Amino acid sequence: MSADNQAVSFVHGGNVHAWARERGSELAGVLDYSANINPLGLADSIREAVTKSVSQVIHYPDVQAVMLKAAISSYYQVDSEYITAGNGAVELLYVLTHTLRPKKVLIPAPAFSEYERAARAAGAGIEYAYLSPENNFAVDVSTLCSRLNGVDMVFIGNPNNPTGTLLTASQLEHLLAAASQAGIIVVVDESFMDFIPGAWEYTCRPLLKQYDNLVILHSLTKFYAIPGLRLGFALTQPALAARLHAAKDPWNVNSLAQAAGVAALADKHYQDKSRAVIHAEKNILFASLKALPGINPYLPSVNYILINIGQTGHSAARLCQTMAERNILIRDCSNYPGLSPYYIRVAVRLNEQNKILLQHLEQVLR
Amino acid sequence: MSADNQAVSFVHGGNVHAWARERGSELAGVLDYSANINPLGLADSIREAVTKSVSQVIHYPDVQAVMLKAAISSYYQVDSEYITAGNGAVELLYVLTHTLRPKKVLIPAPAFSEYERAARAAGAGIEYAYLSPENNFAVDVSTLCSRLNGVDMVFIGNPNNPTGTLLTASQLEHLLAAASQAGIIVVVDESFMDFIPGAWEYTCRPLLKQYDNLVILHSLTKFYAIPGLRLGFALTQPALAARLHAAKDPWNVNSLAQAAGVAALADKHYQDKSRAVIHAEKNILFASLKALPGINPYLPSVNYILINIGQTGHSAARLCQTMAERNILIRDCSNYPGLSPYYIRVAVRLNEQNKILLQHLEQVLR
Repeated sequence: MSADNQAVSFVHGGNVHAWARERGSELAGVLDYSANINPLGLADSIREAVTKSVSQVIHYPDVQAVMLKAAISSYYQVDSEYITAGNGAVELLYVLTHTLRPKKVLIPAPAFSEYERAARAAGAGIEYAYLSPENNFAVDVSTLCSRLNGVDMVFIGNPNNPTGTLLTASQLEHLLAAASQAGIIVVVDESFMDFIPGAWEYTCRPLLKQYDNLVILHSLTKFYAIPGLRLGFALTQPALAARLHAAKDPWNVNSLAQAAGVAALADKHYQDKSRAVIHAEKNILFASLKALPGINPYLPSVNYILINIGQTGHSAARLCQTMAERNILIRDCSNYPGLSPYYIRVAVRLNEQNKILLQHLEQVLR
Repeated sequence: MSADNQAVSFVHGGNVHAWARERGSELAGVLDYSANINPLGLADSIREAVTKSVSQVIHYPDVQAVMLKAAISSYYQVDSEYITAGNGAVELLYVLTHTLRPKKVLIPAPAFSEYERAARAAGAGIEYAYLSPENNFAVDVSTLCSRLNGVDMVFIGNPNNPTGTLLTASQLEHLLAAASQAGIIVVVDESFMDFIPGAWEYTCRPLLKQYDNLVILHSLTKFYAIPGLRLGFALTQPALAARLHAAKDPWNVNSLAQAAGVAALADKHYQDKSRAVIHAEKNILFASLKALPGINPYLPSVNYILINIGQTGHSAARLCQTMAERNILIRDCSNYPGLSPYYIRVAVRLNEQNKILLQHLEQVLR
């Protein structure tokens, strides 16, 4: 099914600034469940690295991002020449589509809406592969493979946002192999992969050397709670990496983000603690949500939970508005192609915060 | 003359990181004359705004950049809907070429090399309009007008980098009018305009409402000494601004750069002092350079000076290398199309620093 002429809203979660403007409130007064950011907040190591680097902003950022790439290379076990550093992963999404100019892209629906926006910005038409709520929005690789005809590029979030579904690397390799034969690029967005303990079963990084049609996108802003700094990277074979470098602003990654990235990837304590906290809290929050009347959450794999609220009698728009009045932002998912107006998404935050979310939800839904 | 198949080096000045890596030195040990950054350094107001905002990087940047755009709108007297905020002006250069995909661009030579790199990234061919050293590299608008046939986009730095030449808005209006008739976009890069006291005679901002083919690029990183933070903007009529917004990452301007921009544009003391210091020092440095044997500087308009060193017996490459060994970086301009291997560019810095530069130059050239 084509969506070429369909108007799509690209409103995102996490717009605390608009919330604060509307209410004349301080950002500190909001409990943001609409953005999927690590609730442990800014690591001391990152805060220190950023603060120490403020004096260095009088110099241009390192165009080669040598220290950042060395840190990424070492932590993620990929050669430096596979890495393109980005002003957030989303910048690289646009660099990618502007560079390769796909005519037709295949996107599971629902999915992160920037895949579509970046594809449209480069003039591409969109094919949706609708995921079924009855099947828990599971991505079926063989269905995707059967939809490759006439497609130049496939996007897939792993884990997928907002559904939380997860594929193994060996499942994705079927798609990569089929796409490779047809010269189709597969963009695997692993921006939430860091939240998964023992992600080696899921990440496609070991497939990079074998598949020149594989692009892995990876955000560092969610796991390290630095969306305001902007930091991410793409992994591709060096030939495509060279094309991406040639198509982007050479100074795209600011100095403070580069310093933050180096500090972040060295902070094993923060990493381990984050994975442990999220792993525990997501299960507690899922069970607690499930116990609320009319709330049907989908099993989370990382730090966010998709919820069908159709049985509550509330629309997502109304519930989100009511919660915002209580200074709690949740994500109205009704603008995702493939979702009805009765889906919301909440982030997994700390236990005390999640209790507040649950209390307010309970009061509103009573 | 076409340069379609010519290999061009896009090495820039200001790469203090490469210098430090090669020498195992600290950044603080270098005197950087190779980047055209305000030598007053980071304003206290900006440092404070950035430091205060570090805690806010756990939130996404304001996608609408409301406060930043309000500050730009008020300071530069342009309506907000004309503004596209950028991760540096150079990001917007790439967004622009990727969006409009010119087939052939006209660029005076020498000029800032990113015009060419961004145009090539979008698949454009390059036409150079060579400026003549005998004529002090003056840009002749009627010559540019005579070269518009078959061109989709014209780039012009005002003041031009590295030559320092400057056109009045009424001179540029001839080009805008001629280009407008043929549907050609004119990109006027005003990234160094802030250094000029009383720039109203030169800026094309008053022409924005009249010309829908005018794009003004404006960096905030040079005048406010924040290249490491990345901040700039484009000014266009709202219809084109909407296209640029649709073609870029929505979160492109990081939170700290947004906060820095708001603080910077409110700091009248820093602005006035910067213009006064640069205005005085550029004249002193120009006169002192002129007095050195074999050194032929071109009259500067802002904070950098192009110099022909042909009569010193040194090539630019050798002189820059020798000076780098003395921990002074100057810009080897031999990779600029339109310049021989005997041109360098130096920034205008503070009086005490300029004396050190002059002493070392004198020793090296003795």
